[in-house]
Amino acid sequence: MNTCQYLEKEHGFEVTYLPVDGEGLIRPQDLAASLRPDTILVSLMFANNEIGTVEPIEELGALCREKGVLFHTDAVQAAGKVPFDVKSWPVDMLSISGHKLCAPKGMGALYIRRGTRLHPLLQGGSHEKNRRAGTENVAGAVALGTACELAGKETKAEEARVRALRDRLEKGLLDRIPFVRINGSVSRRLSNTLNLSFECVEGESLVLALDQAGFTLHRADLPGIAASTGSACASGILEPSHVLAAIGVPPQLVHGSVRFSLGHFNTEADVDVALDVVPAVVERLRTLSPLWEDKLASSPPLPQAS
Amino acid sequence: MNTCQYLEKEHGFEVTYLPVDGEGLIRPQDLAASLRPDTILVSLMFANNEIGTVEPIEELGALCREKGVLFHTDAVQAAGKVPFDVKSWPVDMLSISGHKLCAPKGMGALYIRRGTRLHPLLQGGSHEKNRRAGTENVAGAVALGTACELAGKETKAEEARVRALRDRLEKGLLDRIPFVRINGSVSRRLSNTLNLSFECVEGESLVLALDQAGFTLHRADLPGIAASTGSACASGILEPSHVLAAIGVPPQLVHGSVRFSLGHFNTEADVDVALDVVPAVVERLRTLSPLWEDKLASSPPLPQAS
Repeated sequence: MNTCQYLEKEHGFEVTYLPVDGEGLIRPQDLAASLRPDTILVSLMFANNEIGTVEPIEELGALCREKGVLFHTDAVQAAGKVPFDVKSWPVDMLSISGHKLCAPKGMGALYIRRGTRLHPLLQGGSHEKNRRAGTENVAGAVALGTACELAGKETKAEEARVRALRDRLEKGLLDRIPFVRINGSVSRRLSNTLNLSFECVEGESLVLALDQAGFTLHRADLPGIAASTGSACASGILEPSHVLAAIGVPPQLVHGSVRFSLGHFNTEADVDVALDVVPAVVERLRTLSPLWEDKLASSPPLPQAS
Repeated sequence: MNTCQYLEKEHGFEVTYLPVDGEGLIRPQDLAASLRPDTILVSLMFANNEIGTVEPIEELGALCREKGVLFHTDAVQAAGKVPFDVKSWPVDMLSISGHKLCAPKGMGALYIRRGTRLHPLLQGGSHEKNRRAGTENVAGAVALGTACELAGKETKAEEARVRALRDRLEKGLLDRIPFVRINGSVSRRLSNTLNLSFECVEGESLVLALDQAGFTLHRADLPGIAASTGSACASGILEPSHVLAAIGVPPQLVHGSVRFSLGHFNTEADVDVALDVVPAVVERLRTLSPLWEDKLASSPPLPQAS
C-alpha cells in the first residue's frame, strides 16, 4: 500500500492522480483542472526515479500557490543532480534523501516553509518541534548537512560532467544496438539517467547478465555492470513498472527495460566498459530468445554505425 | 502529547494508567485488576529512566499471557544494564535504543515475537516487512547489532562493576551530605542509577553548578560533573518530574532531585572526583539558600561519618 492508497483507505481522503504525457511530464493544464475548492495538498515528484523526467516544478508550484493550495515536491531523485534554490521557489515542502547525495542511508530531510503547519508524523516526544518523536540520528543529520553543502557547491559542474558521460553512453548504445528506445523525456531529463527498452530482451535477465558480464560472455576480464529494472522501492516485486506503463510504453517493451544511472564516482573509462559489454550481453541474450529470430525475419535492423 | 494521550485523543482508545508504589514498582495485583475483556495491549517500562526501578517484567508479562493480552515492554533503559533473554520471557514486543548501548543515536529496535501482527508505523513502501516505510539506516542497524552482541557478552560483568561504583558513590554522598534521600527502589534498581533528593537545593541549579564545578567552587583544577534532572525526553520543560511525583516524593524535594548515571566509561577515579566535588557544591548552594538557615535551626543534621 503506498501513501496515497493509505490516505484514501484509512483516512478517507480523496486523492486525484494526474496523468503524464509520453515523456512523463505533467501538463500544467491537467493540474489546474484537477484543483478543487477542498484540495489541501498537491504532491508531485520533482524528477522521476525511473526515467529521470524533470517536472516543471516552478510552474506547477506557482499554479498551486495561486489557488492557495499547499505544494510538496519529492526532490529525492533530483537533489544533487539538478541545481535549485528551494527558497526562491513556490514550494511549501520539499523532501530529500541522504543516500542519493552520497550521505549515509536512513537519513532524509523535509524542507518546510516557515508558517506551514504539519500534523506530527510520529507521536511520543517533543523532538524536532513535535513533528517526529524519537532520539535523532545526529551523525546522519550532520552527514546530510555536509552532503547538501557539497552539493550546493558542486552540482552545477557535476551535472555537466555526468551529462556528457550519459550522452556518450546513450549515443554509443543506440549506435551499437538495434531495436532500442529511450524512455522518458530527452529534453527534460536528469543528467545521470538513461532508461532503455530493448526489444526481445527480458530486463531482469539483462540486469543479472550485466552484473555477471564476465560469466555471461565467457570473458573473465570483464567487470560487472550494475543496472536496474523498476525502482528500489519496489524491488523484489515482479510487476511491470507503473512509470513506464504511464508513459505508454507497450507491455512487451516494459519487460525489456533497464535503467543505467551514472553518478559522482563514474568516469569515461566506465562508459568505455559499458559500451564494450552491454551490446555484447544484449546480443547474447537475444540469440537465446525465441522471439529474436522472428523479429529479425520480419524487420531486419538498419545498418549500424560501426 | 505522549503516545497514550495521542491514542486516546486521536484514535479513541481507552488507556488505563497503573499506579506505582513508593519505590516505583507496579503491583501485579493492580495489573491483574486492570485487564478488561477488551484490553488489547499492555505496555510497561522494564526499568524506569529517572529512578532506575526495575519492574518484575516476567511476572507482569506472564499475567498478560494468561489473559491472552499482548505485552510490550520498553527496555530502552534496561538493555545493556540488566542481562536478559527476551525469547525466554513472556514478552511479545520489546523496544531498545542504540544510544543507550553506546551505538549511535537515532537507531532503535523493536523485538516482535513471531506471529505478532502489527499495523505499519510508517506507510509508503514495503521496507521492514511493510512495518516501517523508508530507506533503512544500514550503518546504524549494523552498529546496533554489534552493540547488542557486545552487551550480550559483557552486561553481566559490567553490571557488577558499575554497581560497585554506584554503591560507593551513593554511600559516600549519603555519608558526606546531610538531608539527602534516595529515590526509587533500593533492592530492584538498575546498577548505574542514583537519584537523590537534596533538601534546600534547586535541582536545575545543582546540575549547572556541577557542570561548572571549577567555577562554582573557585577551583580551576576541578572537572565538570554531568548530572541531570528529569529525563532527556522532557528536557527544556521546567515541569517537576512526573516519575518522582508518582512515587510520592514531596514537591519541594522533587525540585531538589538530581540523577547521577554511571556507565561503561566511568572509573573509580570518577567516583573519587564526585565524592570530592558534589558535597562541596551542595554545601555552596545551600549557603546561598534562604531556606537552609531555617532548616539548620529547626533540625540540625546528625554528626557526619567523616
